[in-house]
Amino acid sequence: MVRTMIKTRTTEFPACLVEKRDIVEKHIDGCLPKADQYPQTLHAAIRYSVMAGGKRLRPLLAIAAFEACDGKGEVIYPAAAALELVHTYSLIHDDLPCMDDDAMRRGKPTLHRKYGEAVALLAGDALHDLAFSLMARTGSAQAVLELAEAIGTGGMLAGQMADMEAEGTQVTEDDVTFIHIHKTGKLVRGSVRIGAILAGASAETLEAISQYGDRIGLAFQIVDDILDVEGDARMLGKSVGSDTRNLKATFPRVMGLGRSKEKAKQLIEEAVEIITPAVPHPDCFVELARFIGGRQT
Amino acid sequence: MVRTMIKTRTTEFPACLVEKRDIVEKHIDGCLPKADQYPQTLHAAIRYSVMAGGKRLRPLLAIAAFEACDGKGEVIYPAAAALELVHTYSLIHDDLPCMDDDAMRRGKPTLHRKYGEAVALLAGDALHDLAFSLMARTGSAQAVLELAEAIGTGGMLAGQMADMEAEGTQVTEDDVTFIHIHKTGKLVRGSVRIGAILAGASAETLEAISQYGDRIGLAFQIVDDILDVEGDARMLGKSVGSDTRNLKATFPRVMGLGRSKEKAKQLIEEAVEIITPAVPHPDCFVELARFIGGRQT
Repeated sequence: MVRTMIKTRTTEFPACLVEKRDIVEKHIDGCLPKADQYPQTLHAAIRYSVMAGGKRLRPLLAIAAFEACDGKGEVIYPAAAALELVHTYSLIHDDLPCMDDDAMRRGKPTLHRKYGEAVALLAGDALHDLAFSLMARTGSAQAVLELAEAIGTGGMLAGQMADMEAEGTQVTEDDVTFIHIHKTGKLVRGSVRIGAILAGASAETLEAISQYGDRIGLAFQIVDDILDVEGDARMLGKSVGSDTRNLKATFPRVMGLGRSKEKAKQLIEEAVEIITPAVPHPDCFVELARFIGGRQT
Repeated sequence: MVRTMIKTRTTEFPACLVEKRDIVEKHIDGCLPKADQYPQTLHAAIRYSVMAGGKRLRPLLAIAAFEACDGKGEVIYPAAAALELVHTYSLIHDDLPCMDDDAMRRGKPTLHRKYGEAVALLAGDALHDLAFSLMARTGSAQAVLELAEAIGTGGMLAGQMADMEAEGTQVTEDDVTFIHIHKTGKLVRGSVRIGAILAGASAETLEAISQYGDRIGLAFQIVDDILDVEGDARMLGKSVGSDTRNLKATFPRVMGLGRSKEKAKQLIEEAVEIITPAVPHPDCFVELARFIGGRQT
């Protein structure tokens, strides 16, 4: 009974995307190398990390953008899977001893704790690579370029460096904003842009999609910071309070919980306002924005 | 005077490619993020590794293939630079403490010795990513796919896993062949295939190019093994004999120096025989094959 209640609470999930989530799961599973294929250890390690769950938020954002822009066909699915694999690669490398040295991820030991550092390093590299292979299967070199730019040193990697450099120092609101926009925001922005590009969106629509993505991405990370302070460890599958203990750059630390919540809410509302008049089918996209703002895990 | 002699000996280099090598250097330099741009440390680390020299063999193989197949224009240059960046990424991660734990590379401290492990990890990730960004700039999703497959778990990463698993064990000729074909050969094969694809080669020509690449790639690594036994540390810019000390899987170890040399020679001759009738302009490609077979560094 308790279990069911928790489950209900963790799946306050846009109804329009429930079916898509299952399709994404199948696509991700299908695109991973089989665990009985050489090199088995590496393939098993990849599956351990990718199939550990997660909200599949980036794939769903790409699909929602694709459909909001009237995209048709199956081309979005390899792209969606690619986005999840890139996200997993970044988590694996971020957890390594030379980075955050994390022990737990999604309720299980981190990959290097389970398979050793060398295998974790190569599994991250393999997912990074496989993501580009999948993105190339869309036939769109532009989608590949978007992905590369979202996670390169002008995107996610700039955020990771800034995060590392900020640890243990006095950070300002500007510092935290920079870190979040890059470490989380750029890939979220890239996810919705790729969905729109593959749907053949106009430059004008793409611009609105990007502005939506920027706001959703930042809001997502602020909510993440808030959950680290007041979330339920059981539901999150990781220890809470670790940001505070590690003196991580977070919004609650620089502007308090109350203002952080307001900021997240405001970003979501802005995103909704921007996107509603800009795309042919905004409803599901709006629902997803509100879910991101209100999520409990 | 001595310096000049050494230089002459290390540049026994195909005359047809001398000019191209300078163009490749310029393209590589031009595509790297500037060191004064944020995140500066990461960008400086990237430049430290990429601009440390190296033969630029993979870019030159791609260019030679492109020209052998009558390719025209500038599209090959971002692809060529991408191949070098991928190679550098693989060296940086391979040198890390959890992998080979190497101290020296190209006559200088390895990247993690100079900048620390975290920066080296992210610099490798950044180059991996930047390579795909450059390859996407060719506009060819097929070229991106070729690159991804060459270095994924069916290619280079399979070789790295096999190499790790083989260390300290009794390896056979088959084991070493598998490791070399994957760890080195697949990216060499990919380099010439990408050159041919960007030149618009026919399926038949592409098949001959692939067979050439397979043989050149394996020969290259066998020569590398031989140089580790009898090469000049000063010229190689790294310590020699390290393969033997680390009980690495090498050809000299499983078949002796004499047979290793014969094998390399035979592979080069096969490559030359295959390619000569198969492409419109084979001369430079043949010269490059013979250079790879006879190189001293």
